[in-house]
Amino acid sequence: MTPSDLSNTSRRLRHLTSLEHLPAAQILRLLDRAEALQQQWLRDRRKLDLLHGRTVVNLFFESSTRTRTSFDLAAKRLGADVINFDIANSSTSKGESLIDTLHTLEAMYCDAFVVRHKVNGTAEFLARHVRGPACVINAGDGNNAHPTQGLLDAYTIRRHRPDFSILRVLICGDILHSRVARSDIHALRTLGVGNLRVCAPANLLPAETELPGCEIVEDFDSALDGADVIIMLRLQKERMQQAQVPSEQAYYARYGLDARRLRLARPDCLVMHPGPLNREVEIASAVADSAQSCILEQVGNGVFVRMAVLTELLGV
Amino acid sequence: MTPSDLSNTSRRLRHLTSLEHLPAAQILRLLDRAEALQQQWLRDRRKLDLLHGRTVVNLFFESSTRTRTSFDLAAKRLGADVINFDIANSSTSKGESLIDTLHTLEAMYCDAFVVRHKVNGTAEFLARHVRGPACVINAGDGNNAHPTQGLLDAYTIRRHRPDFSILRVLICGDILHSRVARSDIHALRTLGVGNLRVCAPANLLPAETELPGCEIVEDFDSALDGADVIIMLRLQKERMQQAQVPSEQAYYARYGLDARRLRLARPDCLVMHPGPLNREVEIASAVADSAQSCILEQVGNGVFVRMAVLTELLGV
Amino acid sequence: MTPSDLSNTSRRLRHLTSLEHLPAAQILRLLDRAEALQQQWLRDRRKLDLLHGRTVVNLFFESSTRTRTSFDLAAKRLGADVINFDIANSSTSKGESLIDTLHTLEAMYCDAFVVRHKVNGTAEFLARHVRGPACVINAGDGNNAHPTQGLLDAYTIRRHRPDFSILRVLICGDILHSRVARSDIHALRTLGVGNLRVCAPANLLPAETELPGCEIVEDFDSALDGADVIIMLRLQKERMQQAQVPSEQAYYARYGLDARRLRLARPDCLVMHPGPLNREVEIASAVADSAQSCILEQVGNGVFVRMAVLTELLGV
Repeated sequence: MTPSDLSNTSRRLRHLTSLEHLPAAQILRLLDRAEALQQQWLRDRRKLDLLHGRTVVNLFFESSTRTRTSFDLAAKRLGADVINFDIANSSTSKGESLIDTLHTLEAMYCDAFVVRHKVNGTAEFLARHVRGPACVINAGDGNNAHPTQGLLDAYTIRRHRPDFSILRVLICGDILHSRVARSDIHALRTLGVGNLRVCAPANLLPAETELPGCEIVEDFDSALDGADVIIMLRLQKERMQQAQVPSEQAYYARYGLDARRLRLARPDCLVMHPGPLNREVEIASAVADSAQSCILEQVGNGVFVRMAVLTELLGV
Repeated sequence: MTPSDLSNTSRRLRHLTSLEHLPAAQILRLLDRAEALQQQWLRDRRKLDLLHGRTVVNLFFESSTRTRTSFDLAAKRLGADVINFDIANSSTSKGESLIDTLHTLEAMYCDAFVVRHKVNGTAEFLARHVRGPACVINAGDGNNAHPTQGLLDAYTIRRHRPDFSILRVLICGDILHSRVARSDIHALRTLGVGNLRVCAPANLLPAETELPGCEIVEDFDSALDGADVIIMLRLQKERMQQAQVPSEQAYYARYGLDARRLRLARPDCLVMHPGPLNREVEIASAVADSAQSCILEQVGNGVFVRMAVLTELLGV
Repeated sequence: MTPSDLSNTSRRLRHLTSLEHLPAAQILRLLDRAEALQQQWLRDRRKLDLLHGRTVVNLFFESSTRTRTSFDLAAKRLGADVINFDIANSSTSKGESLIDTLHTLEAMYCDAFVVRHKVNGTAEFLARHVRGPACVINAGDGNNAHPTQGLLDAYTIRRHRPDFSILRVLICGDILHSRVARSDIHALRTLGVGNLRVCAPANLLPAETELPGCEIVEDFDSALDGADVIIMLRLQKERMQQAQVPSEQAYYARYGLDARRLRLARPDCLVMHPGPLNREVEIASAVADSAQSCILEQVGNGVFVRMAVLTELLGV
């Protein structure tokens, strides 16, 4: 089955639901677009007119601060109109199906649907049911994928370490529940990261088949050795059963990134985190707020990456 | 009592709270406006500048997907700013009256109020209390009126069947609770539909005096005979007492529009529904999604009809 | 400690968290700006382009009608984009701290934060934690300050009575819980109001040290004598313990402004109220809706005052 993301007739991306099948050239093209948009924005902070007349719909079935706001700002700074769809107050409460909602909004000439849903595959499902030229962007589905986060992480790394082939990148934390980890792995493998390591408590680690090309390192201290980039994951407290983690303190003791542990990595190692942070749970404040931290830079880069995705998908 | 909709000094519409007293010329003028706006939009999908500097306030006291989004898009595509008034979080929770809220927003130089409320007459009530030049648009009040839906239904029919006088139009379903049915009847009678039929279970049918000019047909199969247009209504489950409808299955058996029944109408009969659909309750999916269905076209037309109403009321 | 509002290097205001330390020249400059913006707006009601490309974030942790909408309109009419941050659905529910939320939004190149919070000092707290050039505007913190309300009240008075030195201004009502009263007192003292009186039930009156330069008058009838301006305050029912006010009727009998009492003031006395009104609790409808009432004018002026604050703080 060809993923709906890839148009058959051209190399332009049709939807963005996952990074899994995206060729490196496509990913790099998006990162280059983001870079051009960032330079233009930083020059004069003027809104662009590229999406004038277009409508972007935020369909968030899970709450979100940064991702929703990031897409909202990306769309507005490209001149688009944004509809923030309040799910709780919507007709889904009158029993309308997700597909009928999609077709209704398509019929109103909406151009892009940014979808977050707790169920894996929702964005792909919607992408297959789009009837017209509208595109679907996955803003996070269950623990499956969060492709714009994967792209912005790759973008952030590239700005500091342009040669992926010599990098050692460590992803650490609650990988089992993390759509960010999955999209990061797809992006970084495709872009040819030299050594991609994952580290997680045994019960927060998915099956090895779900971690293609990754080196699994059980002990956090060993995993940190020589790392160029560390991506710490949020402990998804809201998705975990009580039993999986004995206590936040115990978790921090074994898997929290503090100043001592950071010294095990390379001295110029980048520290990343998709946010929001659980301070003193997976990461020490001293590390999160240190000069090596790229966490807020990731947030800023995210806006440009989403601008790049919107312009690519809408063909401008 | 002169309805507040009609200005005494000019033929321009002042408010739009009902279609009941609107002359045919006025309705046709709105449909012509919608047509011109639609052609312009489809040409290049550029936003218009007609309402630049104007503010449209969505005052929705009942939840809504399509109507609120449709007005939101209509206003934005005309260049207006939109305030979506979150009723639950508003000062009405501090005990401010609806009229004080209206006057407060008027004092902030808001130009148009789009009002949905479960109480019949709310939009007309607000229209009578407007102090300045602002206009009020009824987006649905109780079971009384939904004038922009009536207009968009007339608009949709006219695009396919321009001569109303020879048409047989059937409205079927929960007419008792339906503001859509009332506004459709006002529009279609005024525009001279040759034969206007209604069909509903006895306990979902209002008094005959509320159905002026309509032929009431009890049996759905008989009602379908020779119909050019069928408007199926949503079963307003949220407004009905348990007892009125024995079961959804029983309702579907007697009043659901399925493929067999559709064949009783004319072969080119249009199928319409205001949405959201209760699939397999009042309409079969096979019918709702068929080539004869105009349901999604209605949705799209609604945006242009609302653009027409906004420009007419705001005098541009 | 230098308040964060005042930049050390220039006279331009950096944040607006309180009027307490603002020199008269600064306040007058804001009022003059508001006047120029009002004149421009009333000329042609065209949006301005001054804040094109800028983003204003409404961070309301308390519900609000007029203040939030007023800031929303002010920002949009200056050409800014507005993000209305839905606190209930935000990452604060995932445990993110207020400061992390601030830094996240700053990292997305947001320019101004309009903050309302029930805790005194929240806006000042955020202003001290801003890292970049963004500014913070206090839209109400606990019972501490509501500086744009203080400015719009001063603005409204100045339009009618430009010489503050000869004015007798009475503030009456629930002063204890009122951030409006505190900001009004700061503004009006700084602008040199000749006689500033306060009147409140003993248990709704703060310590005398909190009312610098004010004459405290216990009896409402005496307090009204010769007043040029009366600012009635909202009875903050949601903030009071049951016991403080025996009943709304008893309160109205002693502290409600009705037509008889209004005659004790000067015949051309202005009646003001920050809204929303508790009609027949602190003010009679006959007075609130009379020709002497400036209540709706205050609302309208508020938009221009907030436009002035936004342009001043953002340096345009």
